[in-house]
Amino acid sequence: MTTEKCFAKGSVAPGPVPKDHIRLYSMRFCPFAQRARLVLNAKGIKYDTININLKDKPDWFLEKSPFGLVPTLETPAGEVVYESPITCEYLDEVYPEKRLLPSNPFGKAQQKMMLEHFSKVTPYFYKIPTGRKNGEDVSGLEAELKEKFTKLNEDLVNKKTKFFGGDSITMIDYMMWPWFERLEIFELKHCLDHTPELKKWSEHMLEDPAVKITMHSMDTYKAFYKTYVEGKPNFDYGL
Amino acid sequence: MTTEKCFAKGSVAPGPVPKDHIRLYSMRFCPFAQRARLVLNAKGIKYDTININLKDKPDWFLEKSPFGLVPTLETPAGEVVYESPITCEYLDEVYPEKRLLPSNPFGKAQQKMMLEHFSKVTPYFYKIPTGRKNGEDVSGLEAELKEKFTKLNEDLVNKKTKFFGGDSITMIDYMMWPWFERLEIFELKHCLDHTPELKKWSEHMLEDPAVKITMHSMDTYKAFYKTYVEGKPNFDYGL
Repeated sequence: MTTEKCFAKGSVAPGPVPKDHIRLYSMRFCPFAQRARLVLNAKGIKYDTININLKDKPDWFLEKSPFGLVPTLETPAGEVVYESPITCEYLDEVYPEKRLLPSNPFGKAQQKMMLEHFSKVTPYFYKIPTGRKNGEDVSGLEAELKEKFTKLNEDLVNKKTKFFGGDSITMIDYMMWPWFERLEIFELKHCLDHTPELKKWSEHMLEDPAVKITMHSMDTYKAFYKTYVEGKPNFDYGL
Repeated sequence: MTTEKCFAKGSVAPGPVPKDHIRLYSMRFCPFAQRARLVLNAKGIKYDTININLKDKPDWFLEKSPFGLVPTLETPAGEVVYESPITCEYLDEVYPEKRLLPSNPFGKAQQKMMLEHFSKVTPYFYKIPTGRKNGEDVSGLEAELKEKFTKLNEDLVNKKTKFFGGDSITMIDYMMWPWFERLEIFELKHCLDHTPELKKWSEHMLEDPAVKITMHSMDTYKAFYKTYVEGKPNFDYGL
């Protein structure tokens, strides 16, 4: 694709997916879409990207992906896959090089259960900033988030491994990472102060090539989230 | 196991899982637990059942399964798996006879996307009865549920198949079935009146041996749900 600029309602649908590629419908700052971007990059998969204006979605996008969510994948054969955990598992199965999910059923189930637990963490990244914006006392919410981080920290302590699935990065690390990358933007970095193993994990993650390539600078993130909080997200910020 | 009666707080934990079995922690009337019971029966897996008092859960159960939900599986090696879609996929992978999920990645992703859509249907089975109980007008909610059934009906019409994954039962049928079995109890059977293919699907499902074996009589269901609505669920009703 020649542009990273987002496609909005009224835009002309992009052409067909190139033969040897897979297409990712994304939004540059979306943590859920970043999960798929991490997997695509970690596995060295050839893909093109169509960014979507999530405030003003094109009709052609809603026809392809009925929930209108990113990430959505499309193959040259026109097969469409959406929902971040489904897209990531699909990519891991279709492109078997560098498998990210364990091949044994219990190992895979464990990663999925960890993801279920983590799905109770992500809402705090919306509730706390929203609460602050409305002038509410968010100390209770912050304490709950710290408690969840303590559990993740204990998990690493018990496992004695660098990452959540062992000593190398596996799927669950990539599924959780996008929110940790955004701790600073949401002024939540202090929540890691009492969880040294989790802090070390996040430092190890920062060394990963797929993490490096999918990350924006903090200045860019902050500038984007400012427009987001003001209700006029600039999806093309910095382009 | 010698008893189907539920284990409550204060109960003595059951003994170890027999060597050639898998154990299911369940509740006899729970639609989510029924998903696992359907898969266990369809695949002919040897299992024992420990029913849990979901109003007054044993500590030993909460230690095994931190969300305290059924279904939960336990193997003789002490491996524990919870969350109904995770348990069902785990069973399908560990016991490869009569595979219920497609082996190709896109087919599997399609079933998981269908399940995501269906996860927007199940809340109506709680919202509508609760609304009625509170004397609210639930016609809007019923119209929304009918609309979702119309979409499922269209899906069958487009596919021209008896079941959602083809002409034989696959995982997605079992994942959806428990709520259709309960339409009558929740006085929602009329919601199928304008969706003839979906109605036919539910008639085909009723012929399936795993469906027959996991089902209670309507009288039993109604009697249980009466105690449930009154806030004092009798998990051992009929034993």
